[in-house]
Amino acid sequence: MATIEDRLAVLEARLQAAEDQLAIIRLIASYAPAVDSGANHAAAALWVEDGVYDVGGLTRAVGRDGIAARIDLNQDLAARDRGYGHLLTTPRITLQGDAAEAVNYSFAFTRKERDDRWELDRASANHWRLARTPEGWRVVERFNRLMDGAPISRETVGRGVGP
Amino acid sequence: MATIEDRLAVLEARLQAAEDQLAIIRLIASYAPAVDSGANHAAAALWVEDGVYDVGGLTRAVGRDGIAARIDLNQDLAARDRGYGHLLTTPRITLQGDAAEAVNYSFAFTRKERDDRWELDRASANHWRLARTPEGWRVVERFNRLMDGAPISRETVGRGVGP
Amino acid sequence: MATIEDRLAVLEARLQAAEDQLAIIRLIASYAPAVDSGANHAAAALWVEDGVYDVGGLTRAVGRDGIAARIDLNQDLAARDRGYGHLLTTPRITLQGDAAEAVNYSFAFTRKERDDRWELDRASANHWRLARTPEGWRVVERFNRLMDGAPISRETVGRGVGP
Repeated sequence: MATIEDRLAVLEARLQAAEDQLAIIRLIASYAPAVDSGANHAAAALWVEDGVYDVGGLTRAVGRDGIAARIDLNQDLAARDRGYGHLLTTPRITLQGDAAEAVNYSFAFTRKERDDRWELDRASANHWRLARTPEGWRVVERFNRLMDGAPISRETVGRGVGP
Repeated sequence: MATIEDRLAVLEARLQAAEDQLAIIRLIASYAPAVDSGANHAAAALWVEDGVYDVGGLTRAVGRDGIAARIDLNQDLAARDRGYGHLLTTPRITLQGDAAEAVNYSFAFTRKERDDRWELDRASANHWRLARTPEGWRVVERFNRLMDGAPISRETVGRGVGP
Repeated sequence: MATIEDRLAVLEARLQAAEDQLAIIRLIASYAPAVDSGANHAAAALWVEDGVYDVGGLTRAVGRDGIAARIDLNQDLAARDRGYGHLLTTPRITLQGDAAEAVNYSFAFTRKERDDRWELDRASANHWRLARTPEGWRVVERFNRLMDGAPISRETVGRGVGP
């Protein structure tokens, strides 16, 4: 028969795991609003200080300043269009104590000056490594690859899938 | 050393916050199925009785009947097309006791008679104000703006972003 | 006045319900990464052994092997294109003890050889029946229909909507 102490300890550990998942869902759901509102430094603050954003194999931004600069570039590109929006899907999260990993997709839509129509410009796979810090969960590395059928894309989205 | 009473009170408060987030995720995930199934009154019931749906700066529907009527209009427009669907992203939720706010995106897709192809018609930013009611969490105001690069769009999606 | 025993029992039941929702969110968020990485057997393992995947009224795959074979077919079709990705939205979950149901949308995007542009190929409604098993939550039946304006589409996405 479990004692009250045992039951409290189990509840505290289980609740921590539920809270961790909700915090990571919220962290990743914060990226698109930060970027699309032009708050590139707020977006970069989702990472740990020396975090990494590996963007499509083209850029490997390191540190919050580097990540904010990389996001600025995206903003400039988006500004050429008449509309834009990022869509990030709910991550599949795997907790490992004070670390975690997550996999999701990101989609970038823009509205073209050509014909006023919205188009999907990029569909990407993302593998996120995360860490619990004194300020809460933060991104250690976001590894992003276009879903272009290349082996690395399949491998990225498939990380952690399976038994 | 925390007493059993202390630990129970902390667990109850933390669990309430986790449940609140899940309830709000579920509430917002209920919008698209309600609208796309034609249940406009069920969709309007996601709001409080005197709730507001400010749609793209064009309409400011007030009260459940007004919101249901506004949604009917959307249904009529969708019926002209051969396919349709709403996509709402997972909200970024900020709890404030019995109130909450959330930011997310909504996308409206339709399939065109012209060429049988699906197109993204609208990408919008949404800022939701929510309240805990005796029936559960409900929407107080959904403030919706097209992601068309206008300052109000950036401001809407950016609400609550940052420190 | 609730006893400590009472409060522990209530906390345990409430936490179980929160964990169930997070587990189902994670289960459904596992589908797209499994399929898009080519892990069709891992995708099929999201179902119970004798699970059903009713795909758009065209195929009714029964059992994990049947589901894996059906997914293989999808992979072959996707391989003809230069890019692809599945997008599943956050489900609206209704718990019923050791069973649950959920409604969400799935979108399939591909990049066309014709003009190198991404297109939305399919937007579908999904109704999921789920069960708690010794290995965790699994899919009993995924009932999928194109959002093509047909009554069955509206009915599928509307399941569980309303009072």
